[in-house]
Amino acid sequence: MGKGLLIVISGPSGAGKGTICKRLLEKNPQIMASISATTRAPRSGEEEGVNYFFIDHNRFKNMINNDQLLEYAEVYGNYYGTPKKYVIENLEKGNDVLLEIDIEGALQIKEKFAEGIFVFILPPSLQELKSRIINRGTETEEDINTRYGSARGEINQVIKYDYVVINDDVERARADIEAIIRAENCKVLRVHEEIKLRF
Amino acid sequence: MGKGLLIVISGPSGAGKGTICKRLLEKNPQIMASISATTRAPRSGEEEGVNYFFIDHNRFKNMINNDQLLEYAEVYGNYYGTPKKYVIENLEKGNDVLLEIDIEGALQIKEKFAEGIFVFILPPSLQELKSRIINRGTETEEDINTRYGSARGEINQVIKYDYVVINDDVERARADIEAIIRAENCKVLRVHEEIKLRF
Repeated sequence: MGKGLLIVISGPSGAGKGTICKRLLEKNPQIMASISATTRAPRSGEEEGVNYFFIDHNRFKNMINNDQLLEYAEVYGNYYGTPKKYVIENLEKGNDVLLEIDIEGALQIKEKFAEGIFVFILPPSLQELKSRIINRGTETEEDINTRYGSARGEINQVIKYDYVVINDDVERARADIEAIIRAENCKVLRVHEEIKLRF
Repeated sequence: MGKGLLIVISGPSGAGKGTICKRLLEKNPQIMASISATTRAPRSGEEEGVNYFFIDHNRFKNMINNDQLLEYAEVYGNYYGTPKKYVIENLEKGNDVLLEIDIEGALQIKEKFAEGIFVFILPPSLQELKSRIINRGTETEEDINTRYGSARGEINQVIKYDYVVINDDVERARADIEAIIRAENCKVLRVHEEIKLRF
């Protein structure tokens, strides 16, 4: 049994990463979701080790200094990051790990863990992207314009990824990612050692 | 709409390439099977342009000299080869083309058409490979030993391929190849031009 795959699902805000990952995990309970660490306080209903690892500022700084994070970012004074340990332990056990993250985070991960599978989620069009951000109803007009404005530049980053999935239909996009995982498990470079043992 | 994919299905004799390709084509009528050219005479029931392109020795030699074949081989005095034209025309139309071929032929194709997807079909074990060759009942004992003897060396060629599919179950193997085709259609390098036009 080989190691698991790290599947990094990324793309611009409004592309639908979250919905796709939710469906993927529902349909494939053997896939583990990566859990982020954060210095922000837990919100009502959030559980330690389920939604996040809640840690204090000092500990987070230590994790940065000791290279224990695959990526991290500061957002409004709070830190968010992906602990290496949880991901690596699951991969070693043979579990596939799913990691949903923005483009900046994905590119940080690529530098530290190039053997990951980097999937870029695209909206069907830029118009559709804008309506999705507006329809969330959670962002101010300024936020909407900022996010939409950066989307075009973000889409240029697609060339740094392995795969592109266009999210015009969530179930089709989910099935695309399932096919990508299945195909990656057939890659000669991933199974060559096992074949040498078997034949 | 991008170009189609050339899917080369290869592997040792007895691995089950033929059965898998048959099922793949039955379930995916949009995939075109490549048609070989041969200098041997048509057998009863074989149709020109369906089973083979039947051509004479001189024409075959001309095709070799004019680089009109993706690969060719001489078997018991007859020539067999894969005409480029049929494959390329279908790919240009956006059709995926399936090509079932032995390992020597696949490696010839890789030299001329490296952008193909090279899939190596493995039997579950060498023992199983031997029983399959025996159970065909079409080969002499000498043939069986020759084929079995070369299988081990052939399996070492797997490293030159992109994907490995273990044929312990035909339907599972077929679904693996379908996933490989679906994933390849999501590869950034294949769809990048289209994305640039769309966004």
